[in-house]
This record gives sequence, C-alpha cells and structure tokens, in this order.
Amino acid sequence: MSLNTPNKVNPDLASERTKCTFNTLELTHHLDGGALKTEERKIREKYFLEDPELQSKVPMEYLSHKEKYEEAVRKACLVFKKVQQLQNEGKGGMDNFREILGGRLGSAILGDGNPLTLHFVMFIPTIMGQGTFEQQAEWIEKAWDCKIIGTYAQTELGHGTFIRGLETTAVYDPKTEEFVLNSPTLTSYKWWPGGLGHSANYAVVVAQLYTKGKWHGIHPFIVQLRDEETHMPLPGIKIGEIGCKLGMNTTNNGYLGFENVRIPRTNMLMKNNKVLPDGTYESSPSSKLTYGTMIFVRVVLVQDASTYLKKAVTIATRYSAVRRQCQINPDKPETQILNYVTQQHKLFPNIATCFALQYAANWLWDVYNEVNSQLETGQLDNLPELHATSCVLKAVSTADAALGIETCRLACGGHGYMASSNLPATYGLVTAMCTYEGENTVLLLQTARFLVKIWQNKKDISKLRTLQYLETALNHRVPFSKTVDWILTVLQTAAVRKIELANKHINDRIKSGQSYEEAWNNSSIELVEAAEIHGRIFIVDTFHQYVQKLDVSDSLKTVLKQLDQLYAVSQALKLSGHLLLFTDTTAQTIEKLQLWLEELLALIRPNAVSIVDSFDICDASLASALGAYDGNVYERLYEAAQKSPLNTDPVNKSYNSYLKPFLKSHL
Amino acid sequence: MSLNTPNKVNPDLASERTKCTFNTLELTHHLDGGALKTEERKIREKYFLEDPELQSKVPMEYLSHKEKYEEAVRKACLVFKKVQQLQNEGKGGMDNFREILGGRLGSAILGDGNPLTLHFVMFIPTIMGQGTFEQQAEWIEKAWDCKIIGTYAQTELGHGTFIRGLETTAVYDPKTEEFVLNSPTLTSYKWWPGGLGHSANYAVVVAQLYTKGKWHGIHPFIVQLRDEETHMPLPGIKIGEIGCKLGMNTTNNGYLGFENVRIPRTNMLMKNNKVLPDGTYESSPSSKLTYGTMIFVRVVLVQDASTYLKKAVTIATRYSAVRRQCQINPDKPETQILNYVTQQHKLFPNIATCFALQYAANWLWDVYNEVNSQLETGQLDNLPELHATSCVLKAVSTADAALGIETCRLACGGHGYMASSNLPATYGLVTAMCTYEGENTVLLLQTARFLVKIWQNKKDISKLRTLQYLETALNHRVPFSKTVDWILTVLQTAAVRKIELANKHINDRIKSGQSYEEAWNNSSIELVEAAEIHGRIFIVDTFHQYVQKLDVSDSLKTVLKQLDQLYAVSQALKLSGHLLLFTDTTAQTIEKLQLWLEELLALIRPNAVSIVDSFDICDASLASALGAYDGNVYERLYEAAQKSPLNTDPVNKSYNSYLKPFLKSHL
Repeated sequence: MSLNTPNKVNPDLASERTKCTFNTLELTHHLDGGALKTEERKIREKYFLEDPELQSKVPMEYLSHKEKYEEAVRKACLVFKKVQQLQNEGKGGMDNFREILGGRLGSAILGDGNPLTLHFVMFIPTIMGQGTFEQQAEWIEKAWDCKIIGTYAQTELGHGTFIRGLETTAVYDPKTEEFVLNSPTLTSYKWWPGGLGHSANYAVVVAQLYTKGKWHGIHPFIVQLRDEETHMPLPGIKIGEIGCKLGMNTTNNGYLGFENVRIPRTNMLMKNNKVLPDGTYESSPSSKLTYGTMIFVRVVLVQDASTYLKKAVTIATRYSAVRRQCQINPDKPETQILNYVTQQHKLFPNIATCFALQYAANWLWDVYNEVNSQLETGQLDNLPELHATSCVLKAVSTADAALGIETCRLACGGHGYMASSNLPATYGLVTAMCTYEGENTVLLLQTARFLVKIWQNKKDISKLRTLQYLETALNHRVPFSKTVDWILTVLQTAAVRKIELANKHINDRIKSGQSYEEAWNNSSIELVEAAEIHGRIFIVDTFHQYVQKLDVSDSLKTVLKQLDQLYAVSQALKLSGHLLLFTDTTAQTIEKLQLWLEELLALIRPNAVSIVDSFDICDASLASALGAYDGNVYERLYEAAQKSPLNTDPVNKSYNSYLKPFLKSHL
Repeated sequence: MSLNTPNKVNPDLASERTKCTFNTLELTHHLDGGALKTEERKIREKYFLEDPELQSKVPMEYLSHKEKYEEAVRKACLVFKKVQQLQNEGKGGMDNFREILGGRLGSAILGDGNPLTLHFVMFIPTIMGQGTFEQQAEWIEKAWDCKIIGTYAQTELGHGTFIRGLETTAVYDPKTEEFVLNSPTLTSYKWWPGGLGHSANYAVVVAQLYTKGKWHGIHPFIVQLRDEETHMPLPGIKIGEIGCKLGMNTTNNGYLGFENVRIPRTNMLMKNNKVLPDGTYESSPSSKLTYGTMIFVRVVLVQDASTYLKKAVTIATRYSAVRRQCQINPDKPETQILNYVTQQHKLFPNIATCFALQYAANWLWDVYNEVNSQLETGQLDNLPELHATSCVLKAVSTADAALGIETCRLACGGHGYMASSNLPATYGLVTAMCTYEGENTVLLLQTARFLVKIWQNKKDISKLRTLQYLETALNHRVPFSKTVDWILTVLQTAAVRKIELANKHINDRIKSGQSYEEAWNNSSIELVEAAEIHGRIFIVDTFHQYVQKLDVSDSLKTVLKQLDQLYAVSQALKLSGHLLLFTDTTAQTIEKLQLWLEELLALIRPNAVSIVDSFDICDASLASALGAYDGNVYERLYEAAQKSPLNTDPVNKSYNSYLKPFLKSHL
C-alpha cells in the first residue's frame, strides 16, 4: 500500500477538499520549514515505511507481551541498520535520528515504543555531555556503531523527581581502584529505564558517591550489565522487565539491582567532578551546564506534543467528515457530524493548538541554542528564565495534547475506542509525557517559584523577554476589541493579579506563624494556576507573533489568523473566571467572546479537512482506520477486524473446552 | 492470600489509621446499606475471590488477545456455574448477578470485561420486556439456565445513537411465515455487541421491518447465530470479533452480517407490535414503556461510576500516604506526598465525588422504581423529567469518574502508569461508559432540550422536583455564607441565567433567519454547558439532602458534612466563571471559597486514608500493587514484575535472533 492512496476517496471527504480556500502544499512547506524539508521528509518516510520488513505480519496489539517485545527488537535492529546504511551512503545526520525516534516517523514504525531509544537519546548524550575527552574516545565510537547498547538508569523504585533522594551507592575502593555499586534497599532498585529489561548491555547509572568515607552526592557511572557475547547478566546484577503498562509496552522498561558490582575508577564520568586513583575527590562548580540536556529534551517533548496532537486531530476531523449521524433538520438526510457545533468545538481549538505548540517549540529551540552558546562563554544570566519557560511549556503542552487527544478520541464515539483508530495508543504515548522528564505539577511549581521570586524582587524585569508584562500589565485598561492583542492584555493583567494574590496568601500565612515552606505549600493550588496562566500567555503571544511576521500568501495568512484567534479566544474563555475576577472584563464581554468563538468555528469549518491534510501525515504514520486520506472508514475498520487472530477460526477452541460443557450442564 | 492481609502494614499507613476520628465500620455499613448487606457482600466476595480456579496463572495482561479471550471464557463459565450453585443452595437472587456483573466484584474477577455479560444484562431483559407471554415461556427458561447464550445486536458499523438510521432489514415472507434478514451494506453490519464475536449463539437483533411492501420502523427479533452443537455460524451469518480496543478486551465485541437469513415469524418480539401470519402489521402505542430498561441501565452506570472512582481514590490515597518525595522543609526527611496541598486537591474532591455519585444513583434508583410503577398504571407525567435527569446524571457521572480516575492515576506518577496499579484498566472501563448507552454530549443536549422546553413554557414547574429552582432562583439574592445552601442558591441562579441566555441566543438566531434547528445547533455549546450545570446542581443538592437527614453518629456526620461541603465548594470553584457572570458573586467571595476549599482539604487530611478504608474494597478487588491495604507498595510492584513472562529467561531469544547479529555487524 502506498503512503497516501489517491484512489476511491469517500465522496464527503472529496467534497470537503474542494471547499479549501488556500494552498495546502504551501501550508505543508511552511510547517516543515520549507519545500526541501518536506521533500526530505517524504523520502525518509518512503525509505522506512514502504519497507515490507518493517511491517508486522499480525498487528502487534494482538501479540502477547513477550511476543510484542521480540517483534519490537526485530524492528528496532532493522531500523537502525537502515539508518546506518543511510550514513554509509552519505545521507546521515541528526535528522534521521530525530525522526526515527520522534512522534511522526518513529511511532509509525513502533507505535508502542522502541526498546533502543534511550541508547541514542540518553546513553550517548550523557557520555558526550559528562565524559572527559578520554572517556568519549573510549565509549562514543563503540556506542555510535552499536557495538554496545546502553541506557540511562537514574529513577529508582522509591525515588523519582527528587534525585537527591536516590539510594544506590558507589563506594570507591582505592586498593583495586574500583567503585563498588550496591542497592541497599528494595526502594533503591533502578526502575523505569527504557531498554533496561532485556535490550541494553550497558548503562549510565546515577549513584551516591562515597570516597575516603565521605559522601559527595550523586554522580554518573558507566556500568556493564550483561556479557557482550552471551548477554547473560553479569554477577551481582539483578535485572529484568517491570511489566505491562498503560502504553509503551515495547520500550522494555526495566529494573536493576546491584550486589557488590565492581567497575573501574575510570567508568565514573568525570568531565565535571573527579575521583583520583587514591580516592581524592575533586569537584567542579559548573553543574549548571547539565541543565542543557534537560532543556533539550523538553524542546523535543513540546514538539512531539504538537506532532501527536496533529495525528489525533487529523484522524478525528477526517472521520467527522465521513461519519453521518442524526439530522439537524428532520427533513434532510443524516448529517456529517462535523456540522455539529459541539463537534467543531471539540476539534477546531485542538487544531489551533497544534500550531500554537509547534511555534512554542520553535521558540524554545531557538532560545535554547542562544542560551547554550552563552553558557559556553560563561554567561548564565538567561538560564533561569529559559528553565522556567521550558518547565511550564513542557507541562502545559503535554497536558493539553493529552487532553486534546482524548477529546478527539471521544469525539469519534465508539470507533475511537478501537485500537485500529490508533487514538488509544497515541494517548498512551502522550499521557506518559505528563509524568516523565519532570512531573507536570512539580514543573508548574518550579515556574511559580521563579515567578514569585521575580515578583518579589521586581528588578530587571524589563530584561526578561517572557515576563515584561509583570511591569506593564497592571496599568493597562484597554476597552474590548476583537483582537488577540486585547486578549493578551487582559490575560496578562489576570496573571499579574493572580501572582500578586498568591504572593499575598503566602505572606498572610507567614504572618499567621507558618514557615515560608509551609505557607508555600498551603498556597500551592493558586501558585500552580498562576504558572499555568503564565504559560498560556506565552503560547498565545508566540503564536500571534509568528503569524504576524509570516511571509505567506494572503489566503493562507487568513486561515492562520483565524487559528491564531481561535486559540486565543479558547484560552480566554477557558480562563474566563480569572478574567472576571482580576480584570474589568464584564459579562457582556464574555458573551462577545463566546460569539466570536462561534464565528471562528464557522469560518474554519470549510477548511477544517484541508488544514489537517496540510499536516501531511501519511496513512502509514497515522495507522488509523478512521483517519486515512481516502476516508474509507468502514472498509478499513472491517479489514482491521479481519486481522484479529480470533477470526482465523470460525469456532474458538474455548467453545469445546469451556462453553459447551457449561451450556450442556443443564440438559 | 486472604482478601485483606492484616500483617506487616506499612508504618506510614498504620500511623494514618491511628489518626481516624470516626468509626470506619459505621461508614462501611452506611455505604453498603446496613451491616447485613456488608456481611452478605463479604461472604460473596470470599466465595468468588478466594476460589483458586478464578485466578489466572499468568496475569491476563501478559497474554495475547486470543489467549485473553480463552481465559475470560473459562472464568466466565466458572463464575456463572458458581452463581447457579448458589441458586441451587437457595442463596440466589438478583444481587448475585448485579455484583457479578458490576464494578466491584465483577471487575475483580474479569478486570477487562466478561464475554457473557450481555446475555444477562440485555438478552434476557429484552425478551422479558418486549416478548409476549408465549415468547417468554419459550425463551426465558432456556436463557436463564444458560442452555443458550444471547447478546443484543443493535448498533451498526455506520449507525449508533440515531437508531432510526439502522439499515439491517427484516422482510416478512407470508409464504413461509418467516422473516428474511439482510445486511444491505457494509455500514449495516452489526458492530460492537459484547459476546457476539465467538461466545453467543443467539442474539436479539434490531432491524427495519418490512411487511406487505410497507416499512414499519425498527423492531427486535430473536436470531440464532450458531449451531447449538458445533457452534459453527449458521448459513448466511457472517460473524467475527471486532479486534483490540483501548480496554474491555475480553468482552468479545463482535460484528454480524446477514445474507438471506430466515427466522420464524414468532421470533419477532411482539409484546408491543405484531406481524400476523398473513403479514398484517398491528401496532401498539405503548412504546414509551421501553424507556424503562434504558433508564435502569443508566442507574447502574451512575452506581458503577461511583464504584470505579472509589477504587481509584483508594489506590491513590493509600499510595500517597506511603510514597515519600521531596521535602516541604529542607531540614526534614522526604515527606509523604499526601502532605502536598496540590496532591490533596487532586484526591480529596474525588473522594467526595464518590459519595456524591452514590447518593445520586440511590435517588435515581428510587425515582426510577416510583415512576415505573406509575407507568404500569398508565401515568406518564413524570417520565420526561426522569429521562432528562437520567441523561444528565449518566453524562456528568461517567465524565467526572473518568477524569477523576485519570487524575488519580497521574497523581501516582510513573507507577500509576503500570498495569499493576490497575488504574489504566479501571480508566479503560469507565471511559467507555462515556460513549456507550448514549454518548455524553448527545445526552446533555437531550437534557438541554427538556430544560429549554420547560423554560419556554414556564408551566407546572413547581411539580418538577429537579427544576423548581427555575421559578425561585432568579429572585434569590443571598449574602455569602460558608454553607452549602448558599452555594446551591448561586449555582441555581447561574443555571437559570445560563438557560435564559442560551434561549435568547436561539431566539436571536431565529430572528436573523435561521431555522429553529439551525439556531439550536449554533447555540449548542452553551446548551451543553447549561445542562451540565443543571446536573451538577442536582448532585450537590442530593448529596446535601442525604447528609442532612442521615442517622449516624456525630463523629461520622462531621466527616460526611466536610465531604458534602468539599464537593459543593469544588463545584462552585469549577463553575466560578459562571458564578461571576450570572450572579452577584464578587472576587472577594471567590477568594473566600478558595480559602474554604483549602480549610476543608486540611480538615479531611487526617481522615483521608480511613475514609477510603471505609469503602472496604478488598485487595483482590482493587488488584493494585499501589493500593493494597498493607501499603507494601514496592514489594508488590516488584512481585508483580516477576510475573512478566519476559522475566522467566535471563536472556530473551530475540537477543540471538536480532540483537546479537546487529551488535556484531560492525566487528
């Protein structure tokens, strides 16, 4: 099957496409970052997705947990072999890895996770970021050529976000010049690393370092886990897989315990801190530098949140154009469910969110690169703001994408519940993002801490590009106008007042005798809300600025402006309680916003299918009976059901084993 | 393992229990409906859950789709055999079936659905409700004794909510006195019925009736699907399983197509309408009577929504008492995450919701019985209100329970994502309830239609027990007081104004030239919101009234009042935008509500574990490593992982097949 079958398109869907008012290819190129990028992407998709070896004979959801893993290893090895082939042909580069591991191409090949991801995303980058030149020379080539497969083992059964609480110990033994690793408790077992269960033979392990009887906090160590020939766990290594999960069942998340496991001294990654052969500890003050990787991963998450949401809205919008149900007018035939305003309200704001999150990810990427080059010159001034922004963007984008995907799934009714819609698995991947790489509530509180600190100190605000409104918004009183600028102004005023109120409540509580930390905890519901509003303002603002300065045709610009407005109005209505509380917004203004929202839904309606078409997600990547380009929803649902192994025999063997004896027991 | 292991309780959890200010047993008895009911429940749980034959050797999530089904059939047959044994011992009764098929006991035995459920829940009740006495005599005993297994086939691949749109045809042939069933299109294939795939050999099939060349709308027919001896599909029956789903993967949902399938005339269920041997059609006007079953099913759903949410909050609350993470005070050890106010805010309002939904289900059950007996005397006056209430309660309770369960899951961090937490499967069961038996948005619009009709006619409002506030609320202006009554008053005022506004927008649109139906559709976002607020008022009100008149100890009453208040305050804050819009609620009042909320969280904190203990959900029913009574979270997570078949071999065979050749390809 080719990537987008142009034949026999469902007539409702075909008719939608004739109504399009803009050039979908222009939008595709814009979203890809240019026509060349589009072309490269399509070549890459063809190279991987049309390889019959990368298909499964039986769809993976029907397999047992064990079989799923085995099939995932088969595909993962093949995928990276194909990447190596590209490199050998001179078509290498980071783009291949980013795509192979990302939400668009990667999840099209292994929809429930790739067991080798952490080798590329965490193992290699950690050695590059925290290893000395000698260590890089020793390990990087082997790792890059996949002579060894690594993972990154930090989280423990009893310890996640609070990494200072990790329990695994690495005690230096100067006699043998080795570290001795131990898991002193069950809660200190490493738990969660992808690929750790049965795939990796090495890991970077984060452990509490002791040398000369003194504790020096957590440090990273390269540990061999399995024999390079037999793959048997090495002595003292207690290792296995953690079991079934909501999703990502082929990532092979594992557990790992140590019993007096000895590794050479030189396996501690020593770019920043060192242990000398005699056990002397030498520390470096540059720990801030490791923020970089963390922020980079968050850029990827915001980008992926947008990508997965694009898949979901593509599926749900096309399905809603094909599905007919009930009559709006009793004398007309059943209507496309896309004509219901409640359905539009479920889908179109999420379409707008795809753009909003993509532009936010672009911004974050640019600023990350900028701040990173400042870091190399020793300038750390912009790091706190970037960190605070990356926290709130990761939290808001993953939460909104997850909610948006579930909304799309539910908007597809019963058929959205089918695995063959691919909406359940997509949700499974994205809801996990709400928890890993910093749990969302924890991240929002980190941003809140930054906001309150800035608010309390009130200095140098004008230097902070995401927070200038803290100085300006309180003095704004702008009469209502149907503009995104007006929405931004009132949202900013609401955010400032919210921060002010939360800060007042902290102070009230301190006055009543609570410690700062208790007062902070007791005010944390409002603090989380304040951070969230701040994040939403940033996303509305970024979207609006991107659209303002876009160099595209007028017809496309019109559509993007509608989406920009829809995103802003939806956010304003979602936060209407705060607008009414903290600004002079009136009931009449809220009514106007509601009517504006409804106007925008009607304006976007004729282009809805074409906008999601422009995301240009090929059928193999959507992997959805409901979302394929041709809209042959029912045929595809039926075909998908035929692949169920339960349907190979007309009578399942459980009939003779259990059901027949049960039915006949009363005769 | 006994149901609640009393040994070796986690010390944090044990310490929580010492803080309890009320008698947990008193609350358990209250929730069960008396001490006798508690005892019966426990005997039933013991009888089923301690039967080793009802355990799986390998946890079912690890099996393949096909193996899962086979194991589910084994257990389902055994369960109903055990029910029959109880009946033979004189311990029968509907309670057994309700429990075996319900969220507490049923989902403990088959956590991902029972393939025989629809036989008892739909097949038998439909024959009883719509069959003549002769038909009941012919079918009920066979069905009741499980000599045949049936399902209920209504929904089609292309047709769900709008049942008038069904396409399956039943054409009467007077020559042979038979109906001929056909599936004229792919979209007319039956799709979704539980047990239809490979379990049932009969079905009630809903089809468009044609006789003497005339169409008479949809009617129910009993159709044999499979041979009673061989279980082979009968000629003309195209049948199979629809494939993997987000959850409920052992319910064996099926599809079904007909090609000239002939059934005797007497297989049409003819209590209401008849086809005589010559093909004459005789209709009955009593079609309203079939509303009964639909409303009954919704009572069960509201009850189950409460039950599943109870499971989730039990798991998340106990886990939050055991899990320690980060420090509130830097000089103290890591704190129980239950001490974070943001965590309390995720859990405690959901604990309150469990009570609110249970009381709402009780009310619905009582009024259903009352209205049902009125129906039998021909009095239909109260049916529309009951129908409207059942719609909104089903929609709000399933949506809130699903969201609550996901909130609990996310509040458990990464471990909530493990299948062994049982939170993912619980969500899978409940989110399905948002779609089946009336999709939630469609149901909210039905309630809205009723509300608008009452609002427009404004007569006999005082007779409607759920809508009297439409007359009274507009004149109320009550100064703020920290009472549920105050909250109810302002919510009611907001609801009336919202209905008024939506109605105004409908009228404005009609004046601007739209048809009523177009105007309705264009106003439907607000209409859905109005219906939802109406439903929430009803639940707050019912909770409050139940608590007021409870005959329990003072110490328990104190706790229940706190939960009543917490539910009301949470709802008011959730709807704060509407309060500010439509009532004279001020910013100061909202601030007071927020402080009240925070006070209530602190008041409930010491009793939180004991309240969920009082739900008395045994470990076998919770089926959660995170939620067990003893709180040995980490030991249970580790034990659960050991059951993964991937962990039986230290080296998975994929190493030699794929990974080793890949690793060695560069040497």
